Amino acid sequence: MPKVVDHNERRREVVRAVWRIVGRDGLDALTTRAVAREAGWSTGVLAHYFTDRTDLLVAAFRLVAEEAEARMRGRLAQHRDPVKALKAALGETVPLDEMRRTEARVWFAFLGLAAADASLRPEAERHYETWLGVMTEAVSAVLAEDQLAEHELRRIASRLVAHADGLTVQALFEPDRLSVADLKRQLEKCVADTLAAARIVGV
Amino acid sequence: MPKVVDHNERRREVVRAVWRIVGRDGLDALTTRAVAREAGWSTGVLAHYFTDRTDLLVAAFRLVAEEAEARMRGRLAQHRDPVKALKAALGETVPLDEMRRTEARVWFAFLGLAAADASLRPEAERHYETWLGVMTEAVSAVLAEDQLAEHELRRIASRLVAHADGLTVQALFEPDRLSVADLKRQLEKCVADTLAAARIVGV
Repeated sequence: MPKVVDHNERRREVVRAVWRIVGRDGLDALTTRAVAREAGWSTGVLAHYFTDRTDLLVAAFRLVAEEAEARMRGRLAQHRDPVKALKAALGETVPLDEMRRTEARVWFAFLGLAAADASLRPEAERHYETWLGVMTEAVSAVLAEDQLAEHELRRIASRLVAHADGLTVQALFEPDRLSVADLKRQLEKCVADTLAAARIVGV
Repeated sequence: MPKVVDHNERRREVVRAVWRIVGRDGLDALTTRAVAREAGWSTGVLAHYFTDRTDLLVAAFRLVAEEAEARMRGRLAQHRDPVKALKAALGETVPLDEMRRTEARVWFAFLGLAAADASLRPEAERHYETWLGVMTEAVSAVLAEDQLAEHELRRIASRLVAHADGLTVQALFEPDRLSVADLKRQLEKCVADTLAAARIVGV
């Protein structure tokens, strides 16, 4: 009987190998050769599933995005206090530990590719849309009594996401990098100021 | 008499060719072959100055960063009202027109490379440092009477820069992309809220 190859499972195996390499040796170490070695395959078999490094990076980005989203939803379900829930969910997307730092690198490497390659942008957009949706839910729970319209809640969520993205850029690329403590404080401050401004000054 | 080749001038010629390609055809069109054609050289001569596409992108990024910085300083010098000056300077770094949209793409493409390649990070850091310095000056002029310490002014500037970066990400990669009018309004709101929060709630 011929051996049945589960192609989806094979792709997942590769993505896990990508993730082990990136987590252990950094994004610099991600090459098709390294992935083939890590997965225990020939580069020829690997080429059957992933054509090049970009392809591998896109798969890694997808995994990052899905896991971050799952963690965000977990945080929202976990906290009773909606402000704590919102902060915890937003915190899942900034590099507060080594894992999220690696995730942020993968994310920005992908955005860099999407900046130069229009065909990758729908992928980035899809995940931003989900991310915005989750944050809009979180904001809605916090401001339940303020009777805001959906587009206003979304605008506030969008502002929080923009700020979290900007903090991530600083934590990765700025000269006196934000320490984890600084990053936490800035995130707290951003949530507090944004909610206060929405309540006092309006959306 | 042998012809004297001005190597720096040649490098600048190449960067201008890179810029014409990126501005006209998008970042997707940037290849060493296209640059050689645009500059009227052979790929062999080009290879003498730039080894690969990454090298070209780094040079393009450097040009973007320097020009954005020069425009920011120009804006600060141009406006008497320090709040207008600050808003105008910050606005130079977000994609409010086609040129700045192209610049933002080059910037993010570079950050993407730097996310994966530690050797590129000092270059990103140097320009963030300059950018933060210019914005700290701008904030200092606005809050001159509030007697804040340098590190507090820098923290406010850093918050504004983070927000501008996040808005740029949204303008480039989010599903319902920010229109130019939205982007302007969000930027106004971000400056107003950040300054108000600094004054009312503290840094």
